[in-house]
Amino acid sequence: MRAFMDESFLLNSETAVALYGFCKDLPIIDYHCHLIPQEIAENKRFENITDLALRGDHYKWRLMRANGVEERFITGNASDEEKFEQWCYTIEDCIGNPVYHWAHLEMQRYFGYDKPIAGENAKDIFEHCNRIIARDDFSVWNIFRNYKVAQVGTTDDPADTLEWHKKIAASGEVGLPKVQPTFRPSTLLDVGSPNFKAYLEKMGKQSGHNITDWSSLLVSVAARIAFFKEMGCVSSDHAFDYPVFEEKGDEREIFARALKGESLSEQEVNRYKTAMMLWLGEQYAAKGWIMQLHIGAQRNNNSRMFGILGADTGYDSMSDLPFSLQLARFLDELDKKNMLPKTVLYALNPAFDDMLSVMIGNFQGGDVPGKMQWGSAWWFNDSKLGMERHLVTLANGGMLARFIGMLTDSRSFMSYPRHEYFRRILAQVVARWVDNGEFPNDMGKLKKLMEGIAYYNAKEYFGV
Amino acid sequence: MRAFMDESFLLNSETAVALYGFCKDLPIIDYHCHLIPQEIAENKRFENITDLALRGDHYKWRLMRANGVEERFITGNASDEEKFEQWCYTIEDCIGNPVYHWAHLEMQRYFGYDKPIAGENAKDIFEHCNRIIARDDFSVWNIFRNYKVAQVGTTDDPADTLEWHKKIAASGEVGLPKVQPTFRPSTLLDVGSPNFKAYLEKMGKQSGHNITDWSSLLVSVAARIAFFKEMGCVSSDHAFDYPVFEEKGDEREIFARALKGESLSEQEVNRYKTAMMLWLGEQYAAKGWIMQLHIGAQRNNNSRMFGILGADTGYDSMSDLPFSLQLARFLDELDKKNMLPKTVLYALNPAFDDMLSVMIGNFQGGDVPGKMQWGSAWWFNDSKLGMERHLVTLANGGMLARFIGMLTDSRSFMSYPRHEYFRRILAQVVARWVDNGEFPNDMGKLKKLMEGIAYYNAKEYFGV
Amino acid sequence: MRAFMDESFLLNSETAVALYGFCKDLPIIDYHCHLIPQEIAENKRFENITDLALRGDHYKWRLMRANGVEERFITGNASDEEKFEQWCYTIEDCIGNPVYHWAHLEMQRYFGYDKPIAGENAKDIFEHCNRIIARDDFSVWNIFRNYKVAQVGTTDDPADTLEWHKKIAASGEVGLPKVQPTFRPSTLLDVGSPNFKAYLEKMGKQSGHNITDWSSLLVSVAARIAFFKEMGCVSSDHAFDYPVFEEKGDEREIFARALKGESLSEQEVNRYKTAMMLWLGEQYAAKGWIMQLHIGAQRNNNSRMFGILGADTGYDSMSDLPFSLQLARFLDELDKKNMLPKTVLYALNPAFDDMLSVMIGNFQGGDVPGKMQWGSAWWFNDSKLGMERHLVTLANGGMLARFIGMLTDSRSFMSYPRHEYFRRILAQVVARWVDNGEFPNDMGKLKKLMEGIAYYNAKEYFGV
Repeated sequence: MRAFMDESFLLNSETAVALYGFCKDLPIIDYHCHLIPQEIAENKRFENITDLALRGDHYKWRLMRANGVEERFITGNASDEEKFEQWCYTIEDCIGNPVYHWAHLEMQRYFGYDKPIAGENAKDIFEHCNRIIARDDFSVWNIFRNYKVAQVGTTDDPADTLEWHKKIAASGEVGLPKVQPTFRPSTLLDVGSPNFKAYLEKMGKQSGHNITDWSSLLVSVAARIAFFKEMGCVSSDHAFDYPVFEEKGDEREIFARALKGESLSEQEVNRYKTAMMLWLGEQYAAKGWIMQLHIGAQRNNNSRMFGILGADTGYDSMSDLPFSLQLARFLDELDKKNMLPKTVLYALNPAFDDMLSVMIGNFQGGDVPGKMQWGSAWWFNDSKLGMERHLVTLANGGMLARFIGMLTDSRSFMSYPRHEYFRRILAQVVARWVDNGEFPNDMGKLKKLMEGIAYYNAKEYFGV
Repeated sequence: MRAFMDESFLLNSETAVALYGFCKDLPIIDYHCHLIPQEIAENKRFENITDLALRGDHYKWRLMRANGVEERFITGNASDEEKFEQWCYTIEDCIGNPVYHWAHLEMQRYFGYDKPIAGENAKDIFEHCNRIIARDDFSVWNIFRNYKVAQVGTTDDPADTLEWHKKIAASGEVGLPKVQPTFRPSTLLDVGSPNFKAYLEKMGKQSGHNITDWSSLLVSVAARIAFFKEMGCVSSDHAFDYPVFEEKGDEREIFARALKGESLSEQEVNRYKTAMMLWLGEQYAAKGWIMQLHIGAQRNNNSRMFGILGADTGYDSMSDLPFSLQLARFLDELDKKNMLPKTVLYALNPAFDDMLSVMIGNFQGGDVPGKMQWGSAWWFNDSKLGMERHLVTLANGGMLARFIGMLTDSRSFMSYPRHEYFRRILAQVVARWVDNGEFPNDMGKLKKLMEGIAYYNAKEYFGV
Repeated sequence: MRAFMDESFLLNSETAVALYGFCKDLPIIDYHCHLIPQEIAENKRFENITDLALRGDHYKWRLMRANGVEERFITGNASDEEKFEQWCYTIEDCIGNPVYHWAHLEMQRYFGYDKPIAGENAKDIFEHCNRIIARDDFSVWNIFRNYKVAQVGTTDDPADTLEWHKKIAASGEVGLPKVQPTFRPSTLLDVGSPNFKAYLEKMGKQSGHNITDWSSLLVSVAARIAFFKEMGCVSSDHAFDYPVFEEKGDEREIFARALKGESLSEQEVNRYKTAMMLWLGEQYAAKGWIMQLHIGAQRNNNSRMFGILGADTGYDSMSDLPFSLQLARFLDELDKKNMLPKTVLYALNPAFDDMLSVMIGNFQGGDVPGKMQWGSAWWFNDSKLGMERHLVTLANGGMLARFIGMLTDSRSFMSYPRHEYFRRILAQVVARWVDNGEFPNDMGKLKKLMEGIAYYNAKEYFGV
């Protein structure tokens, strides 16, 4: 029996230990996350461990609800200490869940707390962590430095002023990561939404181009893309909840009707989205940007709680709708014109893993190694189970060695140990092949492989 | 190499042996099965091993057909001894199939027969088993006692008189399980079926409320729910072959037309089902009942054999139609009104496993630990492969520790070793995490975990 | 740590070694491949290792593209030596991909080259292989003899003259496999294609029956089936990219309109396909043929490269559209009339694996052991991962022992080591069950099992 989460955690052979050794000290490129730029710029400090570890973390909230914890201890008005206690009573029973490991890695790495988290120790842990959090040196910037975070890709609306990115860049602070905005035009695509018109006005204002029709819409968006590029952006992101590819319909006319506030048919909405996504894809290709597509979330399943708490509060799950044909046609349409940008496909439901592992192969080439990426195991798959499955399937369907590796996708500054988690799992997966005689025990080559996936591939891909 | 199916079967480490030890002697709660109440009430005795082990067991029939055995040796007029011989010649080659393990556990536990089953020993085994079956003490009641079966949930039609349940309750026999009916309104939902009108008449008679329109239909069904509750029912069950959620249409009018014998469109059938399921869900919530949904069976695929043998004879398989959206909307509609009962979702196609593991998380909470359950690996998944996959995925997506565990879903009194099979597999899965340093080797906590999943969680959930 | 791909490759226990020993020297029945009959008849010789190992091999091309290799080194006008060098630089990094193992097995078995393939050794390997290829005895016929290839099932159009099959049969050469044509009516089914009318004329000419309507179409096709049977054909093959089952419509009228060059609706195309497939299925049943269905390819995803290179050049992937219902209804329609032939179902997307593993069980029986087969892990699944998954799932859902085993599905004479790869993986999968006490360590029975799956089951099934 192996010790609980010690330094050889998840490394079951000497090979695995050696492989992990090759990448464990490399910097972190966290190219896709949801950190709040203002909190970075202001070098946020934290009230206590609840503020740091539970605030906004819907992964943890879901577990507490599964455990029957009352909502007032989760998002309600219980005290932070009570909330933390309820959390400890929950997590101690979460065997086999990735958050069990994340939470313990957080405790070990941020607070030097090595014992299992348990409800009966909640008070001790709460106080222990809070003493450390209260120290002068416990801040966002020092977290970045401790974890050697070399790059952070935030997620930003095209209408955003990026003022906090400017402040970060202007800080002159040594040892901070390159914080790059990511162009995420969610509302722009959401032609059916009630906020759509108000959003266009905001966009018009920000871009300096009033939006009155499809042409001026494109001019306005193009201006924002140019601005984002100036601000260091190299990447876009899309919540492609369901990939649509609708050929029929005139987007000019549809958009004109949307501007008048007329209601659109589902086909018209899809046509608008398709036309806009195709145009955006071309812009990204022209700029040398990366296009990230997050596919297959089924969001806001619980209306009652949506009414109380709003979006992103732990009521999302995965869709099982097929999409291989629509996705292929979308990518093909761009590729036809030689305007398919470097693309990262993430999908939430692992039922589509094998399909994706070979889908990317249809559009590889063009002198960019690993141009098409099947992105890191996403959200509910961001676990030992999910990452192993992703790595093995990715290797089976293509070239694991060109994989751009891990990201946190997180709203929290506590998530950097997930890169360690990934690197350990990667080391173990690769070691299994080597130990089993399926790949040569060539440490020079393996070192390059590990370093590439842990750091250099992403560095190259994103031009960090 | 480990010995064939000995006392440490499936327990590959000391940890696994210890964990299995924590639960192996706990009583069995078999909250969902298809045992025939009359056979329980009458303390059925068996003609021979064919009667006990092969009669009605379509799992075994399917294997015999895959082996090319003629139908007369399966469901036809060959002698019981011939049938058993053909079965032995089949099962000896069923490596990797769960029935191979089930059949051997049956032989070991019921008959003390420890050798591999083989066609050449068929005659010996047949006679050996029959000698034991002929003993006075070999009966249904003693089987219950031997396996410490504490509860049995049968599956019953709303129009059923439950007379056999009354007789069981009145037997005064010591050591019998609590035999509870489960409310399963299959024909009631099947508005398109030719039996529908005749069924409504029966329901009307049983309930004392003549059914002439939607309102009186609800009155009648409500009366049956009340009666079932009086008879100890705490749970419903639905063959949700494909989850429908149709908002459009007036169920009152649709039902009126159905009563007149008019044919309904698919949309109308779906609207009727949706309205009835929503109304039923509310009734279950009001009564504190559990709602069980069995999703994704594709039944009666073979028309020729259906014509000869009817339903449930080994010609069912799994659907691959997506349903995440419909299911979410159905659950949400109940949850909106705070009328979502405790719910167990079973799905037949493991392609939907990950989706289900997180779907339940959308509706957890409300102060009931594990209110929403993703039910035990069902039917074709009731195997080492399927159960491991279920347990690991359940843990990955939520809280395994709150899982209500195993059930047999069986028509046979020979199925209780499947609880043992489950407990061994559970022990092995949990032990793997502990042995690998992924969870603390805290035997106090692990004991509670094993006991909970094997017995106490179901006891609490079903109020046994 | 185990040595890299030595004689015990993939055999992790003594049991596995013993099991592999039972089947390693058995002949190969390669019942489904895409070898070119002319190359067999003419005992093709090869220009060099690029000609032999890379020409036409889109599996390898895809990896090179994933690695960013320029197209001129793949399908373009670079020299064969340059292409081979680029290939070596690619494959050395393909950890976890089946082609990594295939390529090394090719090198080891055909050329006695045991070191890892690497770009820096490309020149040496190129010259080493070419020296061997230049030898007089390096030819197709000797490859067959070296691998004990007992049967080869080619894939042939109904309008083909099969002249090369005649020449092979007439060669009188000792030690050649039985080369049997397979009836694959792709264009015949493709009623919407621009080539359809020209194809019918060719068919009419070959069959001696002019095609003027549905009836004469059937007469013509029946004549070709009779001719194929004379030529030794026992099997058909269909690219069932998506299984359709359309009941509505009159195929006579639809076909008449197609002959006139009128355009057909999707429903009409599907009706034509359904009617033709049902008719063909009956013919196959009447002739005692096997029907092979390859389900779920999503082909030609990249229009730009299709324009340059045409079909089968590495731009295909897998569909995620559900099909369980259509497939069941198609099989049922034949079974209703007792005209369901022996059938092999292959599906490309492993998301459907469990569904298929039980689908075949709906139509087993009729005194043919293993009548319905879920075919060997296909295309992207033809890997350690895919084959293990297939074998384990097949066993879980039915009778692995009746499985007809491996085929290459290959266009290349280099693919025979894939049978070795399969046999090793099979040995390892079975050994795991035995070593774990899940199946008796009965070497007599296990020998029969291994021999059956490796050779005798296919021999019996195809009547070799």
